[in-house]
Amino acid sequence: MARRQATPPIQEFALIRSLEGRFARHAPGLVQGIGDDAAVIETSAQAWCHLTTDLLAEGIHFDMKSATPESVGYRAAMANLSDIAAMGAVPRYLLISLAIPKTVKRSHIYALYRGLMKACRLYDVALIGGDTSASKAGLFLSITLIGTTRGRRALFRHGAKVGDQICVSGTLGDSLAGLKLLRSSTTSGRRNTAFSRSDRKFLIRRHTHPTARVAEGRWLNDRRLASAAIDLSDGLSGDLRHICEESRVGAEVELERLPISPACRAYASAIGVSPSRLALTGGEDYELLFTASPRDCETIEREARTRGYRMTRIGTIRPQRFGIQMTSDGLTQPMPVTSYEHFL
Amino acid sequence: MARRQATPPIQEFALIRSLEGRFARHAPGLVQGIGDDAAVIETSAQAWCHLTTDLLAEGIHFDMKSATPESVGYRAAMANLSDIAAMGAVPRYLLISLAIPKTVKRSHIYALYRGLMKACRLYDVALIGGDTSASKAGLFLSITLIGTTRGRRALFRHGAKVGDQICVSGTLGDSLAGLKLLRSSTTSGRRNTAFSRSDRKFLIRRHTHPTARVAEGRWLNDRRLASAAIDLSDGLSGDLRHICEESRVGAEVELERLPISPACRAYASAIGVSPSRLALTGGEDYELLFTASPRDCETIEREARTRGYRMTRIGTIRPQRFGIQMTSDGLTQPMPVTSYEHFL
Repeated sequence: MARRQATPPIQEFALIRSLEGRFARHAPGLVQGIGDDAAVIETSAQAWCHLTTDLLAEGIHFDMKSATPESVGYRAAMANLSDIAAMGAVPRYLLISLAIPKTVKRSHIYALYRGLMKACRLYDVALIGGDTSASKAGLFLSITLIGTTRGRRALFRHGAKVGDQICVSGTLGDSLAGLKLLRSSTTSGRRNTAFSRSDRKFLIRRHTHPTARVAEGRWLNDRRLASAAIDLSDGLSGDLRHICEESRVGAEVELERLPISPACRAYASAIGVSPSRLALTGGEDYELLFTASPRDCETIEREARTRGYRMTRIGTIRPQRFGIQMTSDGLTQPMPVTSYEHFL
Repeated sequence: MARRQATPPIQEFALIRSLEGRFARHAPGLVQGIGDDAAVIETSAQAWCHLTTDLLAEGIHFDMKSATPESVGYRAAMANLSDIAAMGAVPRYLLISLAIPKTVKRSHIYALYRGLMKACRLYDVALIGGDTSASKAGLFLSITLIGTTRGRRALFRHGAKVGDQICVSGTLGDSLAGLKLLRSSTTSGRRNTAFSRSDRKFLIRRHTHPTARVAEGRWLNDRRLASAAIDLSDGLSGDLRHICEESRVGAEVELERLPISPACRAYASAIGVSPSRLALTGGEDYELLFTASPRDCETIEREARTRGYRMTRIGTIRPQRFGIQMTSDGLTQPMPVTSYEHFL
């Protein structure tokens, strides 16, 4: 439910945001409305429901020609699963709506569903409803995912405090590298052959079959270890900005600390860009970006090892006037505002 | 969330239904999956959440040229509010997603939102989230509405028993008459002038600004007065069939008993069709169709009067082998299978 900037950004988005600001209002039982990875409602004194929704348009978010329908479905489900993971909630139920043009093959719809449900089955998420309709132009897919938490707790974007450590799960930039590899192989033959077949396979797989960090989010939430969290759908640069805005703080990111896979490093070297650039601007890694007090951070590092989670400190929360800066080799520079182009 | 047959029916719908049947499965906390007006999940021992979703496509479900964007929004919200009403739940929260082509005017999007929120405000429903995206072709609108009930109760489509009375709220056929009036005035001048201006206004209003029977549904559910319920979105003929299928029963409808407004009667007379035909096939009345034991039916009729609800007995639940029959003047005939054409 992150407000993605589809390419090219269109003015209507600003309008919608202003409309939402105008029409959205506080309501009984509403814990979190617009402005986080998911909306949160209190359904009883013991339970919160987390709701996230995405509307994906053919030619904007996906392309049935260059991606397999199965991968389109898989990634669409994973994007929503990741939103729920970033709330520290357990994903439970799924609603799928499809608007289908006459030209789409049955087998493609079938494969799309298979991809959606393959991702959902990994997290025991059940399909409970939806809607289908004809479409005069293009395939449209709307997903609503419902997660739950017990005991009134969640990971919000607000809550980061000055002095907190900034952490991420997994490695960054893999998905962007995978996407670039997929594109270069379809558009201009096999150009990037300067690194191993297995690296290539790993990066493409990270793009076509990302992993939502549900167990990690749930653990951080249950143990109250994180002060704020978001999932990395738009890229570190953009998503860290959301945490800073909602928490009214600044941030300092140490580029040398960014966790980058050997495959991604090899790819960056092959195409002659800095690996940290891929890590900063690459979207759809679906890793967790979160903040924690230095003390909780020690607990996280200790427990993560025994749990087999990869968690890396990458920086520190600063006062708001500091802005969002990145440092490397003693140099400091404002983090560029980059918007990741999704799918296409 | 009723599976509407958009015009023309396309084969893919059958495929999707079979896919849903394949992929949908029972899950912990799932009270009702696909196959009712809304999905129902148990969020705690005291609370149920009801979820319904619709995906509406320009040129299929609405036409920005012949309907005002405000009315498109209003009716889209009301269709979902009516689904929640038919579960006997209280509508609470709304998620709106829009895919917007570049050609759509800002003022139209604004009016669409205004219509959506106007309907929602009547029932104290809060906008809590959504998604926006560009669209390469046509405007697409996805709505997810969440309702709640306390104390593990809801009105399902299953539950009707042989001997139960069949009842409806309000009057039937008004919306179809209003739609036909709107069409005839735009396509071929003002043909149908054989009845009063106020009747005309009433019928068009019933089409452009229908009313979801939320208070009535909630009352039937809280007092456990109905054995089964559905909202009339596809027309009496189609929706009664859903109750009969889910409850595994037959039904006998007495055509003379159908509640038809004086305006609808006047319109039927003006165009030379039987009023009961409009009542049977007219969709989008958003009245409640429900069943109740003869004893509960007496309570309903008594209490409805003091509450100012119009409730009418229109027939009786019969064994499944009886099928769905209609009677008039001593004649009996199977009820035709008609599918209402939505919007366009």
